[in-house]
Amino acid sequence: MAKDIEVGGNEYAAKDYQDPPPAPLVDAEELTQWSFYRAIIAEFIATLLFLYITVLTVIGYKSQTDPDKNSDACGGVGILGIAWAFGGMIFVLVYCTAGISGGHINPAVTFGLFLARKVSLVRAIMYTVAQSLGAICGCALVKAFQEAHYVKYGGGANGLSAGYSTGTGLAAEIIGTFVLVYTVFSATDPKRNARDSHVPVLAPLPIGFAVFMVHLATIPITGTGINPARSFGAAVIYGKDKAWDDQWIFWVGPFIGAAIAAFYHQYILRAGAVKALGSFRSSA
Amino acid sequence: MAKDIEVGGNEYAAKDYQDPPPAPLVDAEELTQWSFYRAIIAEFIATLLFLYITVLTVIGYKSQTDPDKNSDACGGVGILGIAWAFGGMIFVLVYCTAGISGGHINPAVTFGLFLARKVSLVRAIMYTVAQSLGAICGCALVKAFQEAHYVKYGGGANGLSAGYSTGTGLAAEIIGTFVLVYTVFSATDPKRNARDSHVPVLAPLPIGFAVFMVHLATIPITGTGINPARSFGAAVIYGKDKAWDDQWIFWVGPFIGAAIAAFYHQYILRAGAVKALGSFRSSA
Amino acid sequence: MAKDIEVGGNEYAAKDYQDPPPAPLVDAEELTQWSFYRAIIAEFIATLLFLYITVLTVIGYKSQTDPDKNSDACGGVGILGIAWAFGGMIFVLVYCTAGISGGHINPAVTFGLFLARKVSLVRAIMYTVAQSLGAICGCALVKAFQEAHYVKYGGGANGLSAGYSTGTGLAAEIIGTFVLVYTVFSATDPKRNARDSHVPVLAPLPIGFAVFMVHLATIPITGTGINPARSFGAAVIYGKDKAWDDQWIFWVGPFIGAAIAAFYHQYILRAGAVKALGSFRSSA
Amino acid sequence: MAKDIEVGGNEYAAKDYQDPPPAPLVDAEELTQWSFYRAIIAEFIATLLFLYITVLTVIGYKSQTDPDKNSDACGGVGILGIAWAFGGMIFVLVYCTAGISGGHINPAVTFGLFLARKVSLVRAIMYTVAQSLGAICGCALVKAFQEAHYVKYGGGANGLSAGYSTGTGLAAEIIGTFVLVYTVFSATDPKRNARDSHVPVLAPLPIGFAVFMVHLATIPITGTGINPARSFGAAVIYGKDKAWDDQWIFWVGPFIGAAIAAFYHQYILRAGAVKALGSFRSSA
Repeated sequence: MAKDIEVGGNEYAAKDYQDPPPAPLVDAEELTQWSFYRAIIAEFIATLLFLYITVLTVIGYKSQTDPDKNSDACGGVGILGIAWAFGGMIFVLVYCTAGISGGHINPAVTFGLFLARKVSLVRAIMYTVAQSLGAICGCALVKAFQEAHYVKYGGGANGLSAGYSTGTGLAAEIIGTFVLVYTVFSATDPKRNARDSHVPVLAPLPIGFAVFMVHLATIPITGTGINPARSFGAAVIYGKDKAWDDQWIFWVGPFIGAAIAAFYHQYILRAGAVKALGSFRSSA
Repeated sequence: MAKDIEVGGNEYAAKDYQDPPPAPLVDAEELTQWSFYRAIIAEFIATLLFLYITVLTVIGYKSQTDPDKNSDACGGVGILGIAWAFGGMIFVLVYCTAGISGGHINPAVTFGLFLARKVSLVRAIMYTVAQSLGAICGCALVKAFQEAHYVKYGGGANGLSAGYSTGTGLAAEIIGTFVLVYTVFSATDPKRNARDSHVPVLAPLPIGFAVFMVHLATIPITGTGINPARSFGAAVIYGKDKAWDDQWIFWVGPFIGAAIAAFYHQYILRAGAVKALGSFRSSA
Repeated sequence: MAKDIEVGGNEYAAKDYQDPPPAPLVDAEELTQWSFYRAIIAEFIATLLFLYITVLTVIGYKSQTDPDKNSDACGGVGILGIAWAFGGMIFVLVYCTAGISGGHINPAVTFGLFLARKVSLVRAIMYTVAQSLGAICGCALVKAFQEAHYVKYGGGANGLSAGYSTGTGLAAEIIGTFVLVYTVFSATDPKRNARDSHVPVLAPLPIGFAVFMVHLATIPITGTGINPARSFGAAVIYGKDKAWDDQWIFWVGPFIGAAIAAFYHQYILRAGAVKALGSFRSSA
Repeated sequence: MAKDIEVGGNEYAAKDYQDPPPAPLVDAEELTQWSFYRAIIAEFIATLLFLYITVLTVIGYKSQTDPDKNSDACGGVGILGIAWAFGGMIFVLVYCTAGISGGHINPAVTFGLFLARKVSLVRAIMYTVAQSLGAICGCALVKAFQEAHYVKYGGGANGLSAGYSTGTGLAAEIIGTFVLVYTVFSATDPKRNARDSHVPVLAPLPIGFAVFMVHLATIPITGTGINPARSFGAAVIYGKDKAWDDQWIFWVGPFIGAAIAAFYHQYILRAGAVKALGSFRSSA
């Protein structure tokens, strides 16, 4: 609401920021730098911690409210607590890794930023591998802690709930990931950064809240993926058929959602299309 | 509490900011700019996402705690989770759209800012239409996902709860919207922005919290509207008489509340009245 | 944790800020300014909104979980939701009124800042009167909305819970108010502001969280006052003996807590005592 | 996600910050300054308030949901409320004491910062003693308030839950403390501070959230220590064998976790190892 009055004049302020050049597909330079490998390590560790904390919360909740074991139906943190765990960890981890790796922690975010040419193809692939491995290790840690509970309570694996069609699940993943990646693009827009130099530091909070919100809404439908590494790691360690049957939903859905968000931000909000067609007024 | 000591001296600091000129009723210039249409698209998408996430959360909660289906009375996110969904989504969406459209996402906010002459009449009308359409589409998405649940659990529609009079419901909507629009005015005051250049970035958090707070207090009374587009979209898609009978409350109430907030901010807090009567000390 | 490394050197940085002169007991100048009366109006409105939202939340919670009416024991926002309502409203209202009145909304905060000579005696008295009247009006609004519920569910009045002694209740109020006023002093320290110019904008969040925390801990003991206006307003409108018998606790406790916090901040943390005794190194 | 595009170029920006020199083991200078003793007092008071609020919340929750006393299983703040109490208090207290003592409030944090040579050995020892004494006093206050409840409901003491092995508890404490201390290092990195001068003010929020997250995940396992002073103070005042038998876990685990976090930050993320080996490109 803040910048309402200057909306009409944005085009005259074009000189206060500059779009960085698109990242190359393969950046040979970055392969020689320690900061590249450091970023991959940071993504691995962050995704590991993300899955460890969140799946442990899910298992602990289900264990404490199990009617077979005790009658304390309200004894756990609730679905609200689970949603906080996912959103809060993303807030903390994006804050911690933003300066090191950009703080993706999610192959769908990496894919969206790759489509917008903000990361190179090599980096995108390496991040996705690191995130997937980190998710596997995080789930493995939880299983090592309490194997009986882990298997009994579903291992934090994503899957369609009874009563929802495949199409509904896929749509829920697409829209949920759209909300997340749209928030990421809004928070890291270089136009915005130029005017508010501290945006990078504040960006993690709305990004974490976006994850929190999507979990509130879609945990009853799919358990909420919107992060292929999270779904993949849980499926690998849980290993039941159920988790694998629906696995494709949690890759295809998030990637489609991220692609739509990238398109929406680059072509509608940043007016890439219009600019390209000749709205040269501001550059005169 | 921070600026306590300089309160007495505010009038001498008048030169550090300048009120923007009032927006014209019809601004022919803005109709020729892509940024105007982009803003309308952004309002549409943001209101769609707002209704999608929040109504899905409401339906999911009612479905999981339905005593006919299962006895897990604590299985949902609770009214606290619903209040978080509304407040948190406003935080995220205002953050994302502030730089594009001003981040209204609510016809009552648009109306308040129009009364304060911060947006043109044309923009106010177009925003309201876009928000209403977005809300309809957001609710339609939820219904498409799970039609049976949607109809059974009330479709997220607003309406007076049993035991409350029409006057009480109207008063609850007026005061609730006052809290929200007062927060919006406080957060976007140009006087404040001049001194704290990063206020725009921080403003979404208190605005989201204001929405969260009003939901905690008035969900038991009306389900909490304070946003005519939200109530209208839910009524259109739910389509039962009940939702339409009370619909006027959710337009009249919020608009009165927004008008009072605009008056309070412009004439009491910004001392428009006093200044107009001749407190010229600071401009000497 | 941030400024750890410069702790030892603080005394050499003394020139980057200047303590404002202590406020006079009676400031004739401020009585002639609109900003003074505007601040009193803002305190009145803010305390009214504070009580309206929070007491409505308390009544709504008790109404929905009443076992005589329905069996949905988990149907309300919970004590966690009530604690959020108190803390969240303080966050929003301090944010909104910080630039107008300093954002006290609490006679104990006003008293602490008066003891530290940050507001004049006249201002402190006028604020306390405005806050008390605002609290009465806020509770009256809730009662007007739903008189039957209001009386049945205790009217949001503070009082000692069964099983706690008067001394325990008084101690809980003293320590709780200490936490709040200590946070207020930390957030508005002029030394801090000089180095971090945006602190005023960020201060409301920890202040609101401090209120949230104290409510989590002491709702079971006294219902949590830590704000004499809040306890007084509820007692006036509720009007039962019980609320009046314990009323003194909710004035004496918070005022003692605020005084200790003012002493702790001014003499221990700001080293007023040591400086006065001759630590002149930095002024040389 | 914000700084993604400049990751490859970090090494060329080396001149915008300077690592402070490592703190000496014994700093005779600091022993002569009031700011040193003030910091110790601040750590004592902060840890006292931390234990007071959090243990009171735990006891109040267990008292209100005791099935022997009443059947209101949802009457308390829930485990979610307890997790908020721990995380929220750390947010508030780190915010309040950051400028005075660095805001450790936790011997594991002090230990990690000592390993990274950010505080002297003398300061680290004095802080740990002050934190432990503060924790004891905070628990003693709660016990004095309500001795019967305190003893009956476990006194907030940490201990392995039934069904978890010692190794699992130790691992949970190690990883949980790693999450916390890693966040502390990320938030207080001087490289980061140089670019974003307001980071110190924002750092307390992610640090508090990190504590909140770890509590959501590990309360079912150990009750969550990750703070030796917290576990020690509760054990001293509660005084049962059970609390002492597992006490070593809550010192060894957090110290190992803090050491790993210090190593990870200094040698992997800050690339201490690589720099030492001759990556001189940027200093040329």
